Amino acid sequence: MNPSRFRPAAGMALLTFAGIPAAQHADAHPKHPGQQPPNIVLIHLDDMGYGDLTATGATGYRTPNIDRLCAEGMRFTNYYSAQAVSSASRAGLLTGCYPNRIGFTGALGPKSKTGLNPDEETMAENLKKAGYATAIVGKWHVGCRPGLMPLDHGFDEYFGLPYSNDMWPHHPQTSSYPPLPLYEGRKVVNPSVSAADQAQLTTRYTEHAVDFITRRSEGPFFLYLAHSMPHVPLFVSDKFKGKSEQGLYGDVMMEIDWSVGEVLKALEKSGAASNTIVVLTSDNGPWINYGDHAGSTGGLREGKGTTFEGGQRVPCIVWWPGTTPAGTICNQLASSIDLLPTFAEIAGTPLPAKQIDGVSIRSLFEGVPDATPRTSFLFYYRKNSLEAVRDGRYKLVFAHPGRSYEAFPPGNGGRPGKVAEGHEFPLALYDMRRDPGERYDVQSQHPEVVEELMRIADAAREDLGDDLRGMPGRNRRPAGRAE
Amino acid sequence: MNPSRFRPAAGMALLTFAGIPAAQHADAHPKHPGQQPPNIVLIHLDDMGYGDLTATGATGYRTPNIDRLCAEGMRFTNYYSAQAVSSASRAGLLTGCYPNRIGFTGALGPKSKTGLNPDEETMAENLKKAGYATAIVGKWHVGCRPGLMPLDHGFDEYFGLPYSNDMWPHHPQTSSYPPLPLYEGRKVVNPSVSAADQAQLTTRYTEHAVDFITRRSEGPFFLYLAHSMPHVPLFVSDKFKGKSEQGLYGDVMMEIDWSVGEVLKALEKSGAASNTIVVLTSDNGPWINYGDHAGSTGGLREGKGTTFEGGQRVPCIVWWPGTTPAGTICNQLASSIDLLPTFAEIAGTPLPAKQIDGVSIRSLFEGVPDATPRTSFLFYYRKNSLEAVRDGRYKLVFAHPGRSYEAFPPGNGGRPGKVAEGHEFPLALYDMRRDPGERYDVQSQHPEVVEELMRIADAAREDLGDDLRGMPGRNRRPAGRAE
Repeated sequence: MNPSRFRPAAGMALLTFAGIPAAQHADAHPKHPGQQPPNIVLIHLDDMGYGDLTATGATGYRTPNIDRLCAEGMRFTNYYSAQAVSSASRAGLLTGCYPNRIGFTGALGPKSKTGLNPDEETMAENLKKAGYATAIVGKWHVGCRPGLMPLDHGFDEYFGLPYSNDMWPHHPQTSSYPPLPLYEGRKVVNPSVSAADQAQLTTRYTEHAVDFITRRSEGPFFLYLAHSMPHVPLFVSDKFKGKSEQGLYGDVMMEIDWSVGEVLKALEKSGAASNTIVVLTSDNGPWINYGDHAGSTGGLREGKGTTFEGGQRVPCIVWWPGTTPAGTICNQLASSIDLLPTFAEIAGTPLPAKQIDGVSIRSLFEGVPDATPRTSFLFYYRKNSLEAVRDGRYKLVFAHPGRSYEAFPPGNGGRPGKVAEGHEFPLALYDMRRDPGERYDVQSQHPEVVEELMRIADAAREDLGDDLRGMPGRNRRPAGRAE
Repeated sequence: MNPSRFRPAAGMALLTFAGIPAAQHADAHPKHPGQQPPNIVLIHLDDMGYGDLTATGATGYRTPNIDRLCAEGMRFTNYYSAQAVSSASRAGLLTGCYPNRIGFTGALGPKSKTGLNPDEETMAENLKKAGYATAIVGKWHVGCRPGLMPLDHGFDEYFGLPYSNDMWPHHPQTSSYPPLPLYEGRKVVNPSVSAADQAQLTTRYTEHAVDFITRRSEGPFFLYLAHSMPHVPLFVSDKFKGKSEQGLYGDVMMEIDWSVGEVLKALEKSGAASNTIVVLTSDNGPWINYGDHAGSTGGLREGKGTTFEGGQRVPCIVWWPGTTPAGTICNQLASSIDLLPTFAEIAGTPLPAKQIDGVSIRSLFEGVPDATPRTSFLFYYRKNSLEAVRDGRYKLVFAHPGRSYEAFPPGNGGRPGKVAEGHEFPLALYDMRRDPGERYDVQSQHPEVVEELMRIADAAREDLGDDLRGMPGRNRRPAGRAE
């Protein structure tokens, strides 16, 4: 759907520039329009929750390098992943589309025959049009069959796992997973990742990321560093074991933070730092039933796999020296589907020919004080079901069956607790200004808001469909299938 | 109780210095030990919630001056008011004591005959020993009878309301309140505050605060600027009406932010800014049942009047140019009862002769990287009932009857919704690292933690008592009574 069909900015122009007079960044466009477009490093964490940053109240571990990104960059507080599970979220991130538009409706497994359709244009393919060298280091998870892998989707280089690190023979609940392979390019360099290998994943990803940065001598580059951690099973190298004060999850976060520091050092050493955008975010909220092995939503409701805020609202930090004002907070709605069009605008590449859903938030990155927000609404799909819609202040949650973590006590020590699937959630309206925790239904106070959000949702349904109502949608495209 | 009786730091050394290498603030003590102790400006908001800052995700309004305090100072994420209602919270703040130690067990009204005991030493009295000029501008609320007012408690000057701004004849639910008086010194300068007067409160408080700062020519000063807003009934001056994008609450927050800016300007104009500490905090969490006229807990559970996080965890920002490292976050436990001993240490005054509960967190203010945390535990009292205890990572909530906002829909437009009083909450253990929203009881996973927290609670009960168990406590002192 075309955002301009809906009412614009009203109610959501919330950009804030903490401590920096507007005059200093009123014209924040790159000073030298003719210069090489900036390098882009997208650091993607797995299952990290909204509350897992120092800035959002995390306790028990220190993350000085991520904190540095916040202090020198911009932190978003109302940023959403495309969906609340890994594959769908990543497909949305890579294409700028709501995942169900391109045939993604959940998480893929080792036996899945589908993946990202080669007809879709990924962020890597888009940036290559401007001469970017491209690499993914880490987890892919949008198709593990030949023809659907990173080198088939615009990445020059690949080192990492094809899917989640728990999809291996040692899964705590399922014994049917095949050995977990580690890839370099199109080659399997380790056919069966062991526990000892898992403990080295963050280290090895970091080495590869640093190597990629160090090898660049000219031309811009795009590095997608998609950590497997802090997804369960949590593993950490010996040098971070016991380093945090509150257990393995903290140790893992500290090692990821170390990795962020290594990337920053490499950028500084190579001289690239002054013309590089670093974005750090997560694919979805924490996997709550893993208890002390899960992250924190910071108080938001539910978690991974749900369309409540704990599932989809994730941290996002943008560090772009000289352009993004330091130490700022952006409270506008934004989503991972906005990154492709944003990077495209920055790199000067044309948007993909096929319809996408994200819009450029470059002006937010640049700290333009009265930038028009990307959009005033957001659609929360789970699979192909439209479970909620947010329009600035209010979020309408439709009656739907869904996952709930609240009925059972969480697990402990790496063993997951039970989860209720198919829990019946009723229609509810939440005031995000005063109730981001989604605890207080206010539909009776604001029937006119309910009505308006229903009208907006209808437009999305026509376009993308809604399994809750048996609607197929007009503009969905198929996922790719193995060759 | 003496904090040293309990195990120290372990599990809670969480201070983080975002973006600033440790070397830069390793010795952050004032450069000139002989210089005049710093001025102290304590800006106290009323019923502002944890989620009401830009940095904690607030949407719909802009607060550039408060954001500036964050960007140039330190923000605490695990900071608690002394209790979750106004009078008790303020009594604790002013004396460094758990409020029930000094006979405060709730909110006072216009007819209350008790107040802060003249035998207690307030922050103002303590600072006067070092020659501070002292003023309170705004809401007092720790005793409105003669002998219990600000000038009886160490303040040289007073301008403001003796109690909450809803304790007036126009209360939405109670018609028995007398006219609301406005004081200057010991004199009533307006015997019956009108709606038009309420709309000018923030402006007039600000004028008086600026005037007090401007009149200081030598000697340090302590200004306690205790705004009546954003407590209901919400009022705002014409110049901020409709200025926010999401209603009256946002307008009110924008006017308070303007006030913060005026105070900063006055400090800069007078030359005092370089030797002044500004602390901004709130007396308790939001009054949830006022719906759109209430603040946000940012996802924390329950609100004002409860010992859940939404009631007691509040924002706290410390701005101390040249000493507190800029743009930092402190995730250690801290409480408003720590401010008196902190200010005392900074000013070089002796602690009050009577036992207090807070401990100095000066080293946190100074950003000493490995500062020992103030304590590893916190007691959550409601009235004289010990409803919860937190020890670093875990919070044990005892079975107790208490207020719950979750059973009824919140109100709207200034009319409060219903509240359940005496709701029976069961015993529960919450992991604050991963569940600050207190949604997942983990007592079955950690029986040893439950046991230890019960043991720690027993020591508090002996000392301060616990009405839930019919224990009077050994070391409580009486409130003051009217002359």
